[in-house]
Amino acid sequence: MTDAAAMDAYLSEPRDLYRGRAMCVVRPKGAREVASVLAFCSERSIPVVPQGGNTGLVGGQTPDSSGRQIVLSLQRLDRVREVDPSSDAMTLEAGVTLLRAQEIAQSVDRYFPLSLASEGSCTIGGNLATNAGGVHVLAYGAARDLALGVEVALADGRLLSTLGKLRKDNTGYNLTQLFVGSEGTLGIITAATLKLFPRPRSRAVALLGLRDPAQALALLNFVKDHAGPGLQAFELMPRIGLELVLRHIPGARDPLGAVHPWYALVEIAGFAEGEAERVASATLSQAIDGGFARDAAMAHSLDQAESLWRLRENLSEAQKREGGSIKHDISVPIERIPAFIAEAGARIAARFPNARPVPFGHMGDGNLHYNVSQPIGGDKTAFLARWDEMNEIVHGLVHDYGGSISAEHGVGQLKRDLLPRVKDQTALDVMRALKTTLDPKGVLNPGKLL
Amino acid sequence: MTDAAAMDAYLSEPRDLYRGRAMCVVRPKGAREVASVLAFCSERSIPVVPQGGNTGLVGGQTPDSSGRQIVLSLQRLDRVREVDPSSDAMTLEAGVTLLRAQEIAQSVDRYFPLSLASEGSCTIGGNLATNAGGVHVLAYGAARDLALGVEVALADGRLLSTLGKLRKDNTGYNLTQLFVGSEGTLGIITAATLKLFPRPRSRAVALLGLRDPAQALALLNFVKDHAGPGLQAFELMPRIGLELVLRHIPGARDPLGAVHPWYALVEIAGFAEGEAERVASATLSQAIDGGFARDAAMAHSLDQAESLWRLRENLSEAQKREGGSIKHDISVPIERIPAFIAEAGARIAARFPNARPVPFGHMGDGNLHYNVSQPIGGDKTAFLARWDEMNEIVHGLVHDYGGSISAEHGVGQLKRDLLPRVKDQTALDVMRALKTTLDPKGVLNPGKLL
Ligand SMILES: Cc1cc2nc3c(=O)[nH]c(=O)nc-3n(C[C@H](O)[C@H](O)[C@H](O)COP(=O)(O)OP(=O)(O)OC[C@H]3O[C@@H](n4cnc5c(N)ncnc54)[C@H](O)[C@@H]3O)c2cc1C
Ligand SMILES: Cc1cc2nc3c(=O)[nH]c(=O)nc-3n(C[C@H](O)[C@H](O)[C@H](O)COP(=O)(O)OP(=O)(O)OC[C@H]3O[C@@H](n4cnc5c(N)ncnc54)[C@H](O)[C@@H]3O)c2cc1C
Repeated sequence: MTDAAAMDAYLSEPRDLYRGRAMCVVRPKGAREVASVLAFCSERSIPVVPQGGNTGLVGGQTPDSSGRQIVLSLQRLDRVREVDPSSDAMTLEAGVTLLRAQEIAQSVDRYFPLSLASEGSCTIGGNLATNAGGVHVLAYGAARDLALGVEVALADGRLLSTLGKLRKDNTGYNLTQLFVGSEGTLGIITAATLKLFPRPRSRAVALLGLRDPAQALALLNFVKDHAGPGLQAFELMPRIGLELVLRHIPGARDPLGAVHPWYALVEIAGFAEGEAERVASATLSQAIDGGFARDAAMAHSLDQAESLWRLRENLSEAQKREGGSIKHDISVPIERIPAFIAEAGARIAARFPNARPVPFGHMGDGNLHYNVSQPIGGDKTAFLARWDEMNEIVHGLVHDYGGSISAEHGVGQLKRDLLPRVKDQTALDVMRALKTTLDPKGVLNPGKLL
Repeated sequence: MTDAAAMDAYLSEPRDLYRGRAMCVVRPKGAREVASVLAFCSERSIPVVPQGGNTGLVGGQTPDSSGRQIVLSLQRLDRVREVDPSSDAMTLEAGVTLLRAQEIAQSVDRYFPLSLASEGSCTIGGNLATNAGGVHVLAYGAARDLALGVEVALADGRLLSTLGKLRKDNTGYNLTQLFVGSEGTLGIITAATLKLFPRPRSRAVALLGLRDPAQALALLNFVKDHAGPGLQAFELMPRIGLELVLRHIPGARDPLGAVHPWYALVEIAGFAEGEAERVASATLSQAIDGGFARDAAMAHSLDQAESLWRLRENLSEAQKREGGSIKHDISVPIERIPAFIAEAGARIAARFPNARPVPFGHMGDGNLHYNVSQPIGGDKTAFLARWDEMNEIVHGLVHDYGGSISAEHGVGQLKRDLLPRVKDQTALDVMRALKTTLDPKGVLNPGKLL
């Protein structure tokens, strides 16, 4: 496609932070066509920007403004190559959407646990290229952990395959994991073999009222200990987060009688009949007796479970409706979350009086969306103008705590220039050396990540 | 060390298949010393063979016969750098033995699931360098899946670190997984951050009598479905395997009344009190009712559980006492195990009448020890002389089935020359390119793997 109107959708991204231009958008149909495009572009040193569902949040899938790059969309690579429930594996082309992947698993009575709010649009290729996370990482790992193998078109047009349903294979370097998470800078993923899991027979969901993040940490340890691998999700949320949801999201209501400073949403799965409810109610009542939580509301129907989840899932949206917010996608060692929240709050209060931190997210993985809402009645533009200043406070502290400034969303364009400040220098040198080895002409997504 | 007697233990390996010579054995004390040795050797192009516990089974840790290589033993890197049960992570130096790592986890009420028969001697560095497996891969993954980060001395003496307790970090390429499984050819692992898990409160172990491998597959699916992530191990064993154990291992006895052609050993863990027994007995009695097994013996004490496990764990030893056996460490997609066993048996019978295949092992991972015992009363030496011929039959079939000729033990010297025949050509080229990038002078374990 070279038509400006047709190309438009490929040139901007969900938050409209980035907008680019492109020579054209190519939409190859299969792996060999992708490889041919790369061979062609490699010969002529034409930079290629791979794009899946275009839902990435760091500008990795958006071309630059030169108009000399091309966008290579994987959306037409949408074949299901194989589904094998007995080997717990499926091989899908890169353009299959995450939602469809989940449905394919379900159609053979299996479970594919990756789950993101963008699942209707994002693709398996994009999920792997960004090592996407979501709410079930605690139990099943991130996209990386779900990949058994990949097929990749290399910069020079060769096609490399580590596809296969094997759970164990020690014949050489793990190339699969080199491409997963490389954001389209080392190769273009054309297909992947993904792990399937047994489907949980029952799920129990509860919202617990907590005193503070230290109590949340103690609760997390207690629940891990008693529910083991049945623990599917452990999400943290402050009172202000719940209040924003109650204020802005129609139909939302507080399931607990009293007000609590913090909340945890806990999901436990079971495989034997009724096991999830049994384990959850035993564990949670012991947790309350043991002083690991102040109160709990357990869902007694699928509807109730969903409305508890909606409190957590609508938090980003509610925060948006509340005004400007400055975002951080960070992780720290789980044990340090309470100290981190306290210290970050204090530092921000000193420089941004009245700004409102809303730290929430995947506490079970040490991953917080550390998002700061603007002061009530303040000026949105003035607040957002200080984005970098806020980032510096939060990212500086993350670094001191041995954390990561990009836990989930990757580096892309958004965090590229931050990388040298937080990364082990030798690690960065090795990354550059690998990039040069696999893409000597720099045609694969240049200007992203490195 | 340059003294011949002192060096001797470092120059041969457990099966005495390989024996080498060395200029000297160096035993550095910390990561910086390892790096200094590499810087020194790199400058002078002296090849370095890293060695941990010297328990590897493919000759990866043994120097060649030139006498111009040096052995670098990691055994004195035995510090515990940090144990953090709240973050479920521990950072250990490479020379810490696996047994000690398990004990360290236990001392903080956590579980480190990697478990091998060699655990008293093998080291964390060796486990990661070979991506070791063992009996709990089904539930927890192999060594690779247990590594959160590594510290690595590079060929030129730089020290690279991805150590850290983070569960989620999407800031660039995954270097950790590049070094894990690279058998000392890309860098020397000096320390690692490893995952910890909650300790199961109860374990149930059972031996089931089966008709054939197809029934074993159906049983595996049934148990996965009903026990979910509680399923810790699923090991397959043929009648002849059990008979060898009963014949050669003092104290071994058959726990089932009748004779069955095949057996599965199943272990289920639970976290709530009594859960393992409850889930196991419900699941196994349903399995028998449903025709997924002919009979089952469930352990009712720790002692009984251990004696069931001993039947499985002594199989290698029993096979050794029975005479010569030709070994294969292979995997195929789980679903194809029954067909593979049938076809391999038929092909071997055609060329080796009276040879006795004893396919056993980690069926839950698709990983079999496809070991063939010599004919009864036959000549051991004559049988073993046909090792390569047997390998060719088995490995050829493994290849046809989309399997791996080295599921657990790696490539080392033993399988190096087989690699080009089974590996995707582009994958092999990329492996070579990575080797050249990270070790341009070829000082790191040359002649191994590639
Ligand atoms: C509402 C919303 C919620 C989200 N929630 C989460 C969340 O919970 N967790 C999370 O991790 N992310 C989340 N995301 C981010 C995003 O959905 C994920 O990163 C997703 O994995 C991107 O997939 P995609 O197909 O849209 O990729 P794109 O956005 O098209 O591309 C993303 C990156 O991958 C590269 N790429 C795409 N396809 C390929 C390929 N086949 N081969 C090589 N490189 C490729 C691109 O060049 C780009 O660098 C969310 C996004 C939105 C809009
Ligand atoms: C009785 C017995 C049972 C076994 N059972 C199993 C099993 O069930 N599953 C399984 O997977 N394996 C098994 N093994 C094989 C072996 O124990 C494992 O491969 C183990 O991980 C090797 O650890 P090690 O410290 O002894 O390494 P070594 O034998 O010393 O070295 C093995 C390889 O790793 C390299 N290496 C060692 N340390 C480092 C380092 N720090 N950095 C870089 N490279 C390094 C060496 O160069 C060599 O290539 C068994 C072995 C025996 C003898």
